[in-house]
Amino acid sequence: MEIIETIDGMRKAIAKAKSTGKKIGLVPTMGALHAGHISLVKAAKKETDFAVVSIFVNPTQFGPTEDIDKYPRPFEADRKACKDSGVDIVFAPTVKEMYPQQNITWVNVEKLSEPLCGKTRPIHFRGVATVCTKLFNIVQPDIAFFGQKDAQQTVVIKQMVADLNMPLKIVVCPTVREKDGLAMSSRNKYLNAEQRKDAPLLYAALQEAEVFIGAGERKSSFLKEQMKKLLSISSRTEIDYISIADAKTLEEIDEIKGKILIAMAVKLGPARLIDNIVLDVE
Amino acid sequence: MEIIETIDGMRKAIAKAKSTGKKIGLVPTMGALHAGHISLVKAAKKETDFAVVSIFVNPTQFGPTEDIDKYPRPFEADRKACKDSGVDIVFAPTVKEMYPQQNITWVNVEKLSEPLCGKTRPIHFRGVATVCTKLFNIVQPDIAFFGQKDAQQTVVIKQMVADLNMPLKIVVCPTVREKDGLAMSSRNKYLNAEQRKDAPLLYAALQEAEVFIGAGERKSSFLKEQMKKLLSISSRTEIDYISIADAKTLEEIDEIKGKILIAMAVKLGPARLIDNIVLDVE
Repeated sequence: MEIIETIDGMRKAIAKAKSTGKKIGLVPTMGALHAGHISLVKAAKKETDFAVVSIFVNPTQFGPTEDIDKYPRPFEADRKACKDSGVDIVFAPTVKEMYPQQNITWVNVEKLSEPLCGKTRPIHFRGVATVCTKLFNIVQPDIAFFGQKDAQQTVVIKQMVADLNMPLKIVVCPTVREKDGLAMSSRNKYLNAEQRKDAPLLYAALQEAEVFIGAGERKSSFLKEQMKKLLSISSRTEIDYISIADAKTLEEIDEIKGKILIAMAVKLGPARLIDNIVLDVE
Repeated sequence: MEIIETIDGMRKAIAKAKSTGKKIGLVPTMGALHAGHISLVKAAKKETDFAVVSIFVNPTQFGPTEDIDKYPRPFEADRKACKDSGVDIVFAPTVKEMYPQQNITWVNVEKLSEPLCGKTRPIHFRGVATVCTKLFNIVQPDIAFFGQKDAQQTVVIKQMVADLNMPLKIVVCPTVREKDGLAMSSRNKYLNAEQRKDAPLLYAALQEAEVFIGAGERKSSFLKEQMKKLLSISSRTEIDYISIADAKTLEEIDEIKGKILIAMAVKLGPARLIDNIVLDVE
């Protein structure tokens, strides 16, 4: 496994792999790899011939009051996890390498970047779309792999790829969960023991909504109320949002019908956790 | 020469050309080809092995009151001009092919899109950057060729390619002029005989500024006054702007020094004409 820190080095390695007819898979990450990331690597290994994992804590997707400084960067463990799962190249550029000059070019996916997490993180998805464009242009993958846990991100990136005719396919892999249901996230490390005990409430609330819908409930407002009540079992949870939206347009819906996304962001101590499920309802 | 109207068809033709090791050159145009465009084709033929000319009157770079409907579309003449100059593929998609759904993803090059033509055409360069990104992603050229006549466009596109790490090179070719100095433009067709006679005043004003600078003049305000006077020889000219700016940042400068762009937009009857020169001043 090669570790490459420069864009030029990456371009050369990719040109070499492509010249032998290899299909390139990219897993873009911010490091602090967990089983969710590894499931993306496995998908890349299965569907392509050459797996690239990028590790880059992208400053342009963090707001001024967010956690970029304390975001975990366990590079040695990440390197080992990549090696153990058969990654071909880890692309780990510095901030200076990715943004050598003040960045003034932004890729912005309007509408889809604004609701849900976009409300409290107004520049987040512009930063995500821009850095993914950069990574796609550097690595030139045939397929890029994203996790369903970041539901809004997957919708934004798919729309961007379609609107800008980017020459790659996006594959979204299922959320990987701890045994108690908590979605894997690098930010779970922020939780202390008490907070960690409460964290499965997010998925429990999503499952509760699914059960109600299965039983015939179709009113979003009722479902949101039930989820709120369940989350408030813990006095430590602070709800950022609970959304029930069209899974493609991310517009809130009043009546449950069609392909819907139920998503939430909940603060638990120092961590802001997100989770979601997608349902197809007749 | 092949004429291709679909994105899929284009991708297949490019994949085929690339598989034989060919270097791809792209000349993005809105059609109504003149000697300026043909000079770009010649450069593409010289520097690459496979010349693609795109012909697409891009709606997203026209403002609501601009000339998209009357913009000339002499496709048969364009086709012949491309064939005669040895173009390999003309890519001529419909608007529906390029924008099958409402486009919500925009590439925006901040700062550089705002001054000069951006002042009266606020969405223009966002549309240009977005459609060029799409064309680059579809054609995947090694080099794309642009004319110096659209000076601000070349600065915007170069910045975009650098900021987003797009895997291609941008080559800018000199402005091609009529014998009397008028810069070639598809919009020159809008001029009647009287207006056409006055049109060389733009380049005359630029040349006047160059002469003054050569003689030691260094004050932008003085040069702008002189250019204004020269342009007002005709009562038909209506100045949109005269700019003397840093050639890279497009910021207005008071004192002439370094690499500078002297640019103007002037309305003459139904046509809004632009022209510019770049000087390197000690």
